[in-house]
Amino acid sequence: MSTLITSLDTPAALVDVPRMQRNIQRMQQRMEGLGVRLRPHVKTSKCLPVIHAQIAAGASGVTVSTLKEAEHCFSQGIDDVLYAVAIAPGKLPQALALRRAGCNLSVLTDSVQGARAIVAFAREHDEALPVWIEVDCDGHRSGLAAQDPALIDVARILSEGAVQLRGVMTHAGSSYQLDNTEALQALAEQERALCVHAAERIRKAGIACADVSIGSTPTALSAQNLDGVTEVRAGVYVFFDLVMHNIGVCQTEELALSVLTTVIGHQLAKGWIITDAGWMAMSRDRGTQRQRHDFGYGQVCSEAGDWIDGARVTGANQEHGIITLGDTCHADLAALFPIGSRLRILPNHACATGAQFPHYHALDANGAVHTWSRLHGW
Amino acid sequence: MSTLITSLDTPAALVDVPRMQRNIQRMQQRMEGLGVRLRPHVKTSKCLPVIHAQIAAGASGVTVSTLKEAEHCFSQGIDDVLYAVAIAPGKLPQALALRRAGCNLSVLTDSVQGARAIVAFAREHDEALPVWIEVDCDGHRSGLAAQDPALIDVARILSEGAVQLRGVMTHAGSSYQLDNTEALQALAEQERALCVHAAERIRKAGIACADVSIGSTPTALSAQNLDGVTEVRAGVYVFFDLVMHNIGVCQTEELALSVLTTVIGHQLAKGWIITDAGWMAMSRDRGTQRQRHDFGYGQVCSEAGDWIDGARVTGANQEHGIITLGDTCHADLAALFPIGSRLRILPNHACATGAQFPHYHALDANGAVHTWSRLHGW
Repeated sequence: MSTLITSLDTPAALVDVPRMQRNIQRMQQRMEGLGVRLRPHVKTSKCLPVIHAQIAAGASGVTVSTLKEAEHCFSQGIDDVLYAVAIAPGKLPQALALRRAGCNLSVLTDSVQGARAIVAFAREHDEALPVWIEVDCDGHRSGLAAQDPALIDVARILSEGAVQLRGVMTHAGSSYQLDNTEALQALAEQERALCVHAAERIRKAGIACADVSIGSTPTALSAQNLDGVTEVRAGVYVFFDLVMHNIGVCQTEELALSVLTTVIGHQLAKGWIITDAGWMAMSRDRGTQRQRHDFGYGQVCSEAGDWIDGARVTGANQEHGIITLGDTCHADLAALFPIGSRLRILPNHACATGAQFPHYHALDANGAVHTWSRLHGW
Repeated sequence: MSTLITSLDTPAALVDVPRMQRNIQRMQQRMEGLGVRLRPHVKTSKCLPVIHAQIAAGASGVTVSTLKEAEHCFSQGIDDVLYAVAIAPGKLPQALALRRAGCNLSVLTDSVQGARAIVAFAREHDEALPVWIEVDCDGHRSGLAAQDPALIDVARILSEGAVQLRGVMTHAGSSYQLDNTEALQALAEQERALCVHAAERIRKAGIACADVSIGSTPTALSAQNLDGVTEVRAGVYVFFDLVMHNIGVCQTEELALSVLTTVIGHQLAKGWIITDAGWMAMSRDRGTQRQRHDFGYGQVCSEAGDWIDGARVTGANQEHGIITLGDTCHADLAALFPIGSRLRILPNHACATGAQFPHYHALDANGAVHTWSRLHGW
């Protein structure tokens, strides 16, 4: 059932479907040009129509951040699923249930402790679980360094255990701190080279290591070659956001997620417009705070989506947003943006803002709005 | 159906029910001692068992931040509801539907534009909607200053329209920026005095203004007298959190909400413990960042809830938390906190962290865990 944007209650999370489709095509074509498979990370959307659009465009399976996402995808026929967070031993029964139901789920570890827990569980249940080893390519979070002796220990524990060593994977999360082409290309090459090196070390130790999986949206869009890589994972490219815009990997016209909001008041002496999109709608993500442009809690656009230069959400309480217009004259604020008028806010971080909503409202090329549900919780 | 904490999957939002009950009693008794009604703000919990506990303790109706909360409360027999966000004209039909169903819903405005929209709608539908006027007592967000000539204009529009002017209300949200008793007491008195003054101005203009509603958790717990006030609104006191602890209105033993998490890895050279509670679980709220103690994304406790001094969530990705132990020796981090072991994290801001979860897991005095669902979205 479709409706029109004018009939939506606010706040609402709008997805511009033509932009989303172009974003999907852009990444898919880039990966095909570089000769690798694309395994999109569905933690950004957590929404089946989005995921189906990615699969339809040529994606090879999905990456998930929770087993709930895995279950949801598998229930809709998407059966090649990488759970890209080092698995807690307590979650192995849930992973096993998915495997037994026919899902080609693979899991992740980055330690001897973790590998031993997986092997013990797999032996007990006679399940040849496919396992990836996480490699740390930039020091930002998890993973074993490509040179770490423990990498070979973990590979050996897995290969001698009853499980399948599927390959090595890494995520250059530090790419979110960059903002120029040279640095992004260098990090993309570092991500590729270190993960391929980790695979080669394992192979030289006589252990099969078929796959090399890397990726983040900024590095995927910056890599010049992906020699030795078999697949790339990326998530936020499907919607993009202001953080990605500041990094320099997308144009403002590619931002596909926005929050529709209603003006509910003004503080004229301060030049404030008060809206019904506070942090509960935008999230508390302030990802642009230390970037080249700080967009506060979001960039303000007209209801039709036109960027209003200098207008930002500079404050947010739970259900109140405070918009300021920058250098623009405030004299007729209440006439320009009367109570009841609507605006759209582009978010800092699409993954965080989307998570605040039970549904997206997907706006197609004809102006019709479709309700797309999304997952919440674990 | 109850279970045990050991059988919960992580991340999970735990509510310590005895602590919550003590928090409810503390605020209720304080308000009764000061001679005012308590109208708790349910935006913190968005959870019926919590709200019912507040009503059972003596609360007079509820405050809500969305009409969805109002509908949810009313469906469970809670019929005195103040929607404490200036109402967008587009939401008036939803408010009317609640009124027509028998809910004693009251709404809010802080402008001539808003009051005119409400009056026009009320006339059209012949519904004597109760309306509050929002007063700005500290410049932090919405409302008319107590001295603003427009206050009388708005009161007159409402009283001469077909609606009921229920009273004036204010919220001293700037109390979140304070951290000493004197300043809190002074702000509490400012909140009281300015809102009472606004009511008196309206009454002097010959317009009935029965109620004076004020409140925030820090000021409610600091007020020395509430002369002229008829009710107090407060929300986060039901769980408290690290922001409230930094402000100085609660002890650590009163914090009733925590996030149960599992250790999934380590970066030993850096002294990092990696867990499965990232920002999707904790929220992106960094409310303690500019307070006297910056707790990062949360304070780390043992699985049993014992505070681990200096241990904080210093980094967070979507499904990864990074814990550091402060000055504690890191030598045997992986032995002290092995993969699969569990911790509890106290959040900066209970309203924001709770919102990340579809359910709370309520831990009663006997160690049994009950699943309490909570609202998500609008």
